[in-house]
Amino acid sequence: MRQSKLFTKTRKEAPKDEVSLNAQLLIRAGFINKEMAGVYSILPLGLRVINKIANIVREEMNVTGGVELQSTALQKQEVWEKTNRWSDAVVDNWFKTKLKNGSELALAFTHEEPMANMMKNFISSHKDLPVYVYDIRTVFRNEARAKSGIMRGREFFWKALYSFSKNEKEHNEYYEKAKIAYKNVFDRVGLGEKTFMTFASGGSFSKYSHEFQTVSEAGEDIIYIDEEKKIAVNREVYTDEVLKDLDLNKEKLVEKKAIEVGNIFSLGYKFSEPFGLKYKDEKGEDQFVFMGCYGIGISRLMGVIVELFNDSRGIVWPEAVSPFAVHLLSLGQDEEAEKIYNQLEEKGIEVLFDDRDVRAGEKFADSDLIGIPWRIVVSGKSLEKGGVEIKRRNSQESEIVAVDEIISKLR
Amino acid sequence: MRQSKLFTKTRKEAPKDEVSLNAQLLIRAGFINKEMAGVYSILPLGLRVINKIANIVREEMNVTGGVELQSTALQKQEVWEKTNRWSDAVVDNWFKTKLKNGSELALAFTHEEPMANMMKNFISSHKDLPVYVYDIRTVFRNEARAKSGIMRGREFFWKALYSFSKNEKEHNEYYEKAKIAYKNVFDRVGLGEKTFMTFASGGSFSKYSHEFQTVSEAGEDIIYIDEEKKIAVNREVYTDEVLKDLDLNKEKLVEKKAIEVGNIFSLGYKFSEPFGLKYKDEKGEDQFVFMGCYGIGISRLMGVIVELFNDSRGIVWPEAVSPFAVHLLSLGQDEEAEKIYNQLEEKGIEVLFDDRDVRAGEKFADSDLIGIPWRIVVSGKSLEKGGVEIKRRNSQESEIVAVDEIISKLR
Repeated sequence: MRQSKLFTKTRKEAPKDEVSLNAQLLIRAGFINKEMAGVYSILPLGLRVINKIANIVREEMNVTGGVELQSTALQKQEVWEKTNRWSDAVVDNWFKTKLKNGSELALAFTHEEPMANMMKNFISSHKDLPVYVYDIRTVFRNEARAKSGIMRGREFFWKALYSFSKNEKEHNEYYEKAKIAYKNVFDRVGLGEKTFMTFASGGSFSKYSHEFQTVSEAGEDIIYIDEEKKIAVNREVYTDEVLKDLDLNKEKLVEKKAIEVGNIFSLGYKFSEPFGLKYKDEKGEDQFVFMGCYGIGISRLMGVIVELFNDSRGIVWPEAVSPFAVHLLSLGQDEEAEKIYNQLEEKGIEVLFDDRDVRAGEKFADSDLIGIPWRIVVSGKSLEKGGVEIKRRNSQESEIVAVDEIISKLR
Repeated sequence: MRQSKLFTKTRKEAPKDEVSLNAQLLIRAGFINKEMAGVYSILPLGLRVINKIANIVREEMNVTGGVELQSTALQKQEVWEKTNRWSDAVVDNWFKTKLKNGSELALAFTHEEPMANMMKNFISSHKDLPVYVYDIRTVFRNEARAKSGIMRGREFFWKALYSFSKNEKEHNEYYEKAKIAYKNVFDRVGLGEKTFMTFASGGSFSKYSHEFQTVSEAGEDIIYIDEEKKIAVNREVYTDEVLKDLDLNKEKLVEKKAIEVGNIFSLGYKFSEPFGLKYKDEKGEDQFVFMGCYGIGISRLMGVIVELFNDSRGIVWPEAVSPFAVHLLSLGQDEEAEKIYNQLEEKGIEVLFDDRDVRAGEKFADSDLIGIPWRIVVSGKSLEKGGVEIKRRNSQESEIVAVDEIISKLR
């Protein structure tokens, strides 16, 4: 893409009321626009990152057998009353709205109820199970304060998968697959080393739920990490009894701030019972469906990645989620740069081509702020030295590479 | 995809309160699920159609120079007050909600105001223009009645593009490009022959706006078509004066019911003035930005396509938007069918493989209801005759094709 066609501009300053580092950098670099606290438009650069994260999540969900659908934001009162979650006293972050006829509707913050309700149309026999459906969409949470940028939005993208199994055994088999898929997602987006599967409080149907927590000073949770075993315990269940149960040695655990990037949860019959979501087993007897839910915050992940990968000059994107693979800067060598741009594009390499008529210093500063992993500079000086100057965003060193060796260098 | 993994099932009956043909067929075939009147979840088959339509729209918008972003659903009161559109007396289909602190928010039904407001961050010089941004997302309209299925939803997918030009001349050049892009979209999704560019009422800045109206008995609009010129006039501007202005002969015009599938609109300074959206021209003087807007109802298009392409047995998808290219039915020949399925998938052909353990009649009926363009049946009888039975959904005739000739037959 030609940068001259990208309408966004970098900014020296983020809005004054923006206190989170992730949103400050993302706003300054032109990835998001603040509409209000906790509500951000996703600008073209940001949308490329969101789509890359979403596609990684999608691929891993598909591997587990997940099937994608798109649920709705507007939800009926009666669906949420079945589980007593309609009341604002029970769910403290509802957004509600009203139809013309006065009936209240909810803006979805999650979809266990609508999914259980819908599945009654499709599940009747043991032959219909198991089913794994997921949804990548915006949901709404009426946060009293929203000061963490895109790490805690009032409107945000997430992926939610809901599993419907015949029984706890079948559920547990999927649950283990989901753990692996989640690990793959966090590895692939570049957060693997800092992300720990964390034991957290369960529900009526399981002792624990599992959170995926990424260590970050910006985190709102406290976890206790066993770095050898690569697992952690959330403060909410950090008791001697739990440590014993998990065979963890208190002496070895390290306390860290972390941010929850995903969670998986056994729901058991909590939703299938109130909705009467049943199937006939092989003997013809009615059984309740055993459910689970599995969330990943897609826009939150973008924020966490920025919190972890940045320096004084800007963002440093991991390759898998960077908006472009290469940032190509022309310093007064538009003809040569144009040729290189076309060559790279032909090879399917995603290039942001800074073809703007601005001074070199501005191009360098913008490139560092935007944070694309490879920077290629085409200048009179580089051409004299025999090619282009290639530098990685996270390295101080650059090298001159002949034009016809660029592609092999990038690989 | 294996149909055994698709959790949706066809149904004999749509919900009793569903009066529109498009939603009846889409619900019965398992493309959508009704959450309430005017609000439908998009099931896996439907999501494939929506994604295909969205990608066609995306490609055509990109050709015009459009850049994609993702706006927000939650909107601030003060942004809408600038143009006096906040009041429910002015906009009669608002959904509103509230933050914890009591301030009211809107659920977006369109984005002229937020876009004009946001562009103040990015437009300051004539060098920043023109800009074309678009957004494919769900919007919300509080319809008093919602009886047209997915053709008039309370929550629906659309594409909206907003153009920002230096002046009317530059705007008009883009406007003509948009007309071509729109024609391409409706041609590509299969509606070209029945869709007419229709003159409708303009605003303060142009005599007319242009709607794209698809002839259908389910339409809510009345248009007068000149079939030779392939244009039409909306009843709202159907006067002798307008006909004269457009050089149309009343005698030649045919009155038809039609449904609006897209519209393009010159906005002039209607939004840039209240937001103070200005740029410095080459002389250093302040000028207001000239705006336009360009909408296409993505989920509505799915509905219109179903209204137009169906028969007594079900939907008949045009190839470009069909959820799959081929419906492969195994009638007790799973091993042979499996091989064919793998071969087609390897060639990148999208196949729905009916590997379910149900009787032949059910497979045939489901296949007709779902409406995929090509049906391939693998049965003992077809193999005896030397291959598989291939039939187009919209044809009565089938033929036997040798297994190694299937791919060339499909092309």
